[in-house]
Amino acid sequence: MRFLFHLPLSPYSRKVRLVLSEKRLPFELRVEKVWERRPEYLELNPAATVPTLVEDNGLAIADSGVICEYLEEAYPDTPLLGKTLGERVEARRLVAWFDGKFAAEVTRNLQGEKYVKRIAGWGQPDAGALRAGYANLRQHLQYLGWLAETRKWLAGSSLSLADFAAAAHLSVLDFLGDVDWSLSPPTREWYARMKSRPSFRPLLADRVPGMMPPAHYADLDF
Amino acid sequence: MRFLFHLPLSPYSRKVRLVLSEKRLPFELRVEKVWERRPEYLELNPAATVPTLVEDNGLAIADSGVICEYLEEAYPDTPLLGKTLGERVEARRLVAWFDGKFAAEVTRNLQGEKYVKRIAGWGQPDAGALRAGYANLRQHLQYLGWLAETRKWLAGSSLSLADFAAAAHLSVLDFLGDVDWSLSPPTREWYARMKSRPSFRPLLADRVPGMMPPAHYADLDF
Repeated sequence: MRFLFHLPLSPYSRKVRLVLSEKRLPFELRVEKVWERRPEYLELNPAATVPTLVEDNGLAIADSGVICEYLEEAYPDTPLLGKTLGERVEARRLVAWFDGKFAAEVTRNLQGEKYVKRIAGWGQPDAGALRAGYANLRQHLQYLGWLAETRKWLAGSSLSLADFAAAAHLSVLDFLGDVDWSLSPPTREWYARMKSRPSFRPLLADRVPGMMPPAHYADLDF
Repeated sequence: MRFLFHLPLSPYSRKVRLVLSEKRLPFELRVEKVWERRPEYLELNPAATVPTLVEDNGLAIADSGVICEYLEEAYPDTPLLGKTLGERVEARRLVAWFDGKFAAEVTRNLQGEKYVKRIAGWGQPDAGALRAGYANLRQHLQYLGWLAETRKWLAGSSLSLADFAAAAHLSVLDFLGDVDWSLSPPTREWYARMKSRPSFRPLLADRVPGMMPPAHYADLDF
């Protein structure tokens, strides 16, 4: 059986879970406490990050970006990167935007401080990081809102990896109660469409010991 | 004419310059002072990073990872990602390793402090960051040495994007005089092979106002 080493509130793990489900590829989840640096895990993924996908044939694939490119090539049904070169450039640009820039400016400052530090036992959230994270999130919601308002899906007319990358980050922040959806109605409308996809259901059922998501987290009509 | 917005000591720009040359795609370089946040540039690349590639037909491609995937798809001659799924996973894993982990642990602490801060007018290098960068570089040279010793090229039996990503970072650090090649003879032997490729020549001729590379920087027999 294919399995995925993950952490429930890792946006990169969530992106891959969504993509696997959209491609109807069955998989089992295994929680990996990466900060314990388990030698067997480091052999699969020396970077000690989640997710790592392990295929039936034993092929181990580390890094969510590498996993998604692999899944596009190995399972080309339900393509998620677009067809033309231009569409693929835009979908990948936005994946890099969310997994690079958004992650560094927002996710790391909020999920990194409130969740990663807690589960890894690395101490209390830093107040300055949280402030920066909230301020950056407001800016990013403007950009997301512009994308959602002017396009059917974030990268254009087709649902793509860009939507799953963005929704994965937002779903983690929403679990933490950090998203004020009233700031960007077009983003909320787009996220409601993402949330109602069957692939999203397992993410909405995720629970983390000692952390309760807000009531609207799993609500499709929030 | 195809052109590439770049900065001479940006490892991401250098990786793309190498790949364009290896694929024999002619291009012109344009220096982009990204910290000036030129509105015309932000329209091409809202993340305000280098490199950005602009094709003859006007297609603008931001982010070195996106550019390299695009070039593989648009110009499949001289493939640089390997043929089998497994080879492609390993090449992409190492690109993510160098452009993600190595960049954060080494390049940002050395090139970021000594070069980016200087050209952007952001002040003096931070001594703690430099110390961390040098310590991390020693660790990474061990891993690089292991790859170079056990494989023909870093990702396996074929020259791949992994070699260009790694060589781009090392070439920047070498320009800054930061690489003690005696620490890893297999890495030096591999880097000498990379350096002697025609695609590398323009990088060895790069000069930056007020910064002199060490004498061995452009020497093929260092």
